[in-house]
Amino acid sequence: MAGNTFGEIFRFTTWGESHGPSIGCVVDGTPPLIDISEEEIQTYLNARKPGQNRFTTQRKEPDSVKIVSGVFEGKTTGTPIGLIIENTDQRSKDYGDIVKKFRPGHADFTYWEKYGIRDYRGGGRSSARETAMRVAAGAIARKVLDTQIDGGVQIRGALVQMGPHKIDRTRWDWNEVSNNPFWCPDPVAAKEWETYLDSARKAGSSLGAVIEVVASNVPVGLGDPVYDKLDSDLAKAMMSINAVKGVEIGDGFETAAYTGEENADEIRMVDGKPHFTTNHAGGILGGISTGQDVVVRFAIKPTSSILTPRKTVTTDGEETDIFTKGRHDPCVGIRGVPVGEAMMALTLADHWLRHKAQNR
Amino acid sequence: MAGNTFGEIFRFTTWGESHGPSIGCVVDGTPPLIDISEEEIQTYLNARKPGQNRFTTQRKEPDSVKIVSGVFEGKTTGTPIGLIIENTDQRSKDYGDIVKKFRPGHADFTYWEKYGIRDYRGGGRSSARETAMRVAAGAIARKVLDTQIDGGVQIRGALVQMGPHKIDRTRWDWNEVSNNPFWCPDPVAAKEWETYLDSARKAGSSLGAVIEVVASNVPVGLGDPVYDKLDSDLAKAMMSINAVKGVEIGDGFETAAYTGEENADEIRMVDGKPHFTTNHAGGILGGISTGQDVVVRFAIKPTSSILTPRKTVTTDGEETDIFTKGRHDPCVGIRGVPVGEAMMALTLADHWLRHKAQNR
Amino acid sequence: MAGNTFGEIFRFTTWGESHGPSIGCVVDGTPPLIDISEEEIQTYLNARKPGQNRFTTQRKEPDSVKIVSGVFEGKTTGTPIGLIIENTDQRSKDYGDIVKKFRPGHADFTYWEKYGIRDYRGGGRSSARETAMRVAAGAIARKVLDTQIDGGVQIRGALVQMGPHKIDRTRWDWNEVSNNPFWCPDPVAAKEWETYLDSARKAGSSLGAVIEVVASNVPVGLGDPVYDKLDSDLAKAMMSINAVKGVEIGDGFETAAYTGEENADEIRMVDGKPHFTTNHAGGILGGISTGQDVVVRFAIKPTSSILTPRKTVTTDGEETDIFTKGRHDPCVGIRGVPVGEAMMALTLADHWLRHKAQNR
Amino acid sequence: MAGNTFGEIFRFTTWGESHGPSIGCVVDGTPPLIDISEEEIQTYLNARKPGQNRFTTQRKEPDSVKIVSGVFEGKTTGTPIGLIIENTDQRSKDYGDIVKKFRPGHADFTYWEKYGIRDYRGGGRSSARETAMRVAAGAIARKVLDTQIDGGVQIRGALVQMGPHKIDRTRWDWNEVSNNPFWCPDPVAAKEWETYLDSARKAGSSLGAVIEVVASNVPVGLGDPVYDKLDSDLAKAMMSINAVKGVEIGDGFETAAYTGEENADEIRMVDGKPHFTTNHAGGILGGISTGQDVVVRFAIKPTSSILTPRKTVTTDGEETDIFTKGRHDPCVGIRGVPVGEAMMALTLADHWLRHKAQNR
Repeated sequence: MAGNTFGEIFRFTTWGESHGPSIGCVVDGTPPLIDISEEEIQTYLNARKPGQNRFTTQRKEPDSVKIVSGVFEGKTTGTPIGLIIENTDQRSKDYGDIVKKFRPGHADFTYWEKYGIRDYRGGGRSSARETAMRVAAGAIARKVLDTQIDGGVQIRGALVQMGPHKIDRTRWDWNEVSNNPFWCPDPVAAKEWETYLDSARKAGSSLGAVIEVVASNVPVGLGDPVYDKLDSDLAKAMMSINAVKGVEIGDGFETAAYTGEENADEIRMVDGKPHFTTNHAGGILGGISTGQDVVVRFAIKPTSSILTPRKTVTTDGEETDIFTKGRHDPCVGIRGVPVGEAMMALTLADHWLRHKAQNR
Repeated sequence: MAGNTFGEIFRFTTWGESHGPSIGCVVDGTPPLIDISEEEIQTYLNARKPGQNRFTTQRKEPDSVKIVSGVFEGKTTGTPIGLIIENTDQRSKDYGDIVKKFRPGHADFTYWEKYGIRDYRGGGRSSARETAMRVAAGAIARKVLDTQIDGGVQIRGALVQMGPHKIDRTRWDWNEVSNNPFWCPDPVAAKEWETYLDSARKAGSSLGAVIEVVASNVPVGLGDPVYDKLDSDLAKAMMSINAVKGVEIGDGFETAAYTGEENADEIRMVDGKPHFTTNHAGGILGGISTGQDVVVRFAIKPTSSILTPRKTVTTDGEETDIFTKGRHDPCVGIRGVPVGEAMMALTLADHWLRHKAQNR
Repeated sequence: MAGNTFGEIFRFTTWGESHGPSIGCVVDGTPPLIDISEEEIQTYLNARKPGQNRFTTQRKEPDSVKIVSGVFEGKTTGTPIGLIIENTDQRSKDYGDIVKKFRPGHADFTYWEKYGIRDYRGGGRSSARETAMRVAAGAIARKVLDTQIDGGVQIRGALVQMGPHKIDRTRWDWNEVSNNPFWCPDPVAAKEWETYLDSARKAGSSLGAVIEVVASNVPVGLGDPVYDKLDSDLAKAMMSINAVKGVEIGDGFETAAYTGEENADEIRMVDGKPHFTTNHAGGILGGISTGQDVVVRFAIKPTSSILTPRKTVTTDGEETDIFTKGRHDPCVGIRGVPVGEAMMALTLADHWLRHKAQNR
Repeated sequence: MAGNTFGEIFRFTTWGESHGPSIGCVVDGTPPLIDISEEEIQTYLNARKPGQNRFTTQRKEPDSVKIVSGVFEGKTTGTPIGLIIENTDQRSKDYGDIVKKFRPGHADFTYWEKYGIRDYRGGGRSSARETAMRVAAGAIARKVLDTQIDGGVQIRGALVQMGPHKIDRTRWDWNEVSNNPFWCPDPVAAKEWETYLDSARKAGSSLGAVIEVVASNVPVGLGDPVYDKLDSDLAKAMMSINAVKGVEIGDGFETAAYTGEENADEIRMVDGKPHFTTNHAGGILGGISTGQDVVVRFAIKPTSSILTPRKTVTTDGEETDIFTKGRHDPCVGIRGVPVGEAMMALTLADHWLRHKAQNR
């Protein structure tokens, strides 16, 4: 409840600041006897890792995860899993400018006002560095889903909009996602974005983005109406990611413009089972999964750290300007893709265990 | 955790089905010595009440709330407040058609699959009738905020889009909201919507909508990063409202198309205090309130019950059609406005108490 | 978290004061498709009901429970179960004396100091009347256990000590429990207690008691170490009952005087399964059930309301005396037996569902 | 909820096994701007540390705690505090005997049955080693109480019974507690216990104990009736400590033998404020602190690891015997004193923050 825990039965708690000695998390509630290794978790961390191309921050972190508890002879024991990543590339630079100046769009002002103190080094606790632990915990969540659900659950994310430029959905190809540095499923858009983002990067500017995460083979029945609906918890999950300003399920805000006739996902029998012919609902009705793909999209605002000076004030109440020279992502949305996937996995794993509790 | 409770310190739990004998809730964690009466709560319920004009369901419910515990001699005692509303207009009609048919867009299918049983009368637990208790609990939340926060917190909602038709924001006038049956702040749009909705209603069709809720005079510092951010909890709150498919904070999805320069809310000193010159962020940075207006928008899909037959199947696996003749809202979004206000009040009250716990 | 909810997955929330219009509860997380009727719940309430003989308070409450939600056509639906009991025998007497005087041993002083207000009528929220809802919710918990666990779980309680007088355990006979008004398993002690309690009652005095609750056929594996151990949650459950001052598991405080050799519950194979030859541990090791009988005992202090004047002060800070003429139990422990059974059932049902979540 | 978290607003989560690389915890909800250092926490850890005299296990652990997050420039920041202790003395011995044999009185059998796997090295997660993190987190809880409550809260523990030998309460002297290796407040008893325990130790036997923890200067008003009463949460807290089998508040089980006249704590005015003339209630009425000393006692069973062979079975279902040669405490109760103090501090700190939330 104090803010650093996500989930109820399958839950994780993170700790650590951007420039502290390490970051870590505790994953509690994992069923026992699941095979898990540091290598498997590392795979997902590597996908999120900064410094891999010119479009993400040049901070070089190996992000090597260590399992420090809860796994014995390669299997989960049912006790809490402790994960730790050492911080290795905290440049001991002069933080002079941001020690006292509130960077617009950052959490500087609100942390200062709420707590009366803040670890200004690299954003401290409010840094996107915290999301590394989400990805690590998410890897365990995926294992839970894949181990317990027949056929496993496939969770994939993609960038569907960069700045004002949306992909062409008719060109959607999941295989393209790994062929470009943007997780873009549209190869044509990927090419255009490269030029576009390069120009933004060189100008010291930044861009927003929209990410879509899709989970396939989700069992029907996940979600606890009315206040712990699956879509409610997904909305909370995605909105907790740094810089996210909007979340939608299925056709989302588009449905406001639909008529009831257009919006209805009709049902037919296919292979002896009910089958929805469309999926405007994004796989959730009444807060409960329908068995269709669960589809979530979220908007990420442009990186707040830019080269152009912005007006601000200091902790002493003096008016001033600020601009950022540091190592920053021109489009933080890019690195948000694996984080969105992780939050999907974590939310589904928790609801899967909750569903088992009440119903089987 | 079982799904029917919202909030942590200031929390409420609802019970009751659309066509059961009554609906009710328990509001726990209310500070003591706050004046509260059934009349005050009733005021908010009356605003939400169906059957008030031709644009909402013709079910006539007096929705008379009774306080059955937690208030003594007109004041809260700090013990749980019990609220009950008798259901009086549950027509004992023949439910024949919907007993076995899954209505597309409704929770029929998912409740059936999850629980293996469902109270089909009026949607049972998944009915929007449940939201009456949110409005009642929300009235208590408002009292908490107004009693404990200097100057009170003003929470107002408006319909900003009906079907594809958005308001003109330059004409926004909060006073207009009570001058039309749509909670529309734009008098010109209100007029147009009347014609538009009438035609949809007569055709037995339905329309979606977008609602905006604004909270003013929210203290700086509310929200518990990183997983119980104020925006995360608002997203969860709004997404838990029936038929909601998307939530955004401040400029929301628009920010994805902004550059960092456009998105920055700059800060100046005004009257010796930091003052943001814009509010793209919607009053929340790093998951913590900034002191500016907290702005949330959410999309409501069109009412699923329509006159045009839609394809569906039965609980026995037979393909069939269904259409709805019953008393339904052509645009459920309209009645969602007071519910959105209530969820804002409930979220802020909980976070206010949480903030007091850790910081003062 | 606000104090009026017990349990995590299978959880209930109570509301209502001793002399308000009604008391009630919401039971959330019940699995669907369980047969449950008002009559079944009533059976347990009748066992707890006051006014049944001269040894319990003469308040006459029919305690008729109504199911107001969550059950459809005789079966649970998985949605929250609402239960209500109308208060019918709240004598509209003059509360003059206790309005301002703090009764020693009662919650008067602490409620006043904590909340600055209290409903003094019959103890308000702190009255043992609240326990009626525990018994009602406990009836549902028993159904959950009996429906889901092969062979059901048998939960039985007994009074094993009244005042300083303990039963002779060699005479323990569960069948005797219903043959006397004290839930006493020792027929000889029951006879002696009758005389003893009569004399206390006539003197306007009161007596403490010790209650033992035993659950048989509890599956091995219930309990979530290390902070939600089964014994930890049972201790919390029993200590939450009015007037309870101590809780022990198995041989409890006696084990402090044992040597390690005496305390060891040895294990042999019986019918191909591990079998403990003794049960000093009370069916719990490392916070997890062993499959043996789960044995809990708790001490209840003597009723605080007595005829002999005690020194106290008023809300205005004046020294005075107080004594109680009202309808009170000379030994509240007697009516605590069904409440203890209910808390056992509620704790086990919650842990059963939690166990299913993580492990099956 | 998954078992490894304690507290609601001020909460901590522990991870780590006895013979893993390290153990740790996350303390969430700490108010900001509290001075805290590793040295301060270390002081409490040193008091609990094993290997300090011949009466505790000879495992030599420096138990050096590291603060890895949540503290900046010597002050808490309001974000989660991460604490880690490296395990240094995990002898890489042959665990042959206990790999397959269930040690009576240990959690071996139940962990195996619940999870189907267990880390048998030194008891894994069920080891008392976990309590080191409680002591570390407890040090932070003490700082919260001392910083926020006028005059601070004094929390002291003592061993009041070893085996069947109780102290003489008329000789109670808090200053004696640090003068002997048993935390014994009675110097005469301390002398006798030394001989007594030595003989048990040499015989390879073990003894139980009773511990009393007293908190002074606790503000009136802590506790959330009816299910999160202060005494309920203390009972849960103490029962969660390894080997505890009973908990009592104030006069505890003795009150069962009292009459109402004897049990009443009368009230007089002293210095213009209500003052209880006795404290049978142990500082809690109706689940809320009275302002008197909060007094809790708990019973610890004798160490299960003894030299005399006990009958048991193996994971393969074979009957066998087991005895323990390892480094173990002849009376684990001794090292339970600082752990009991820590659980008192943690429970009070959580309830203090909860009280602030609802009432101030």
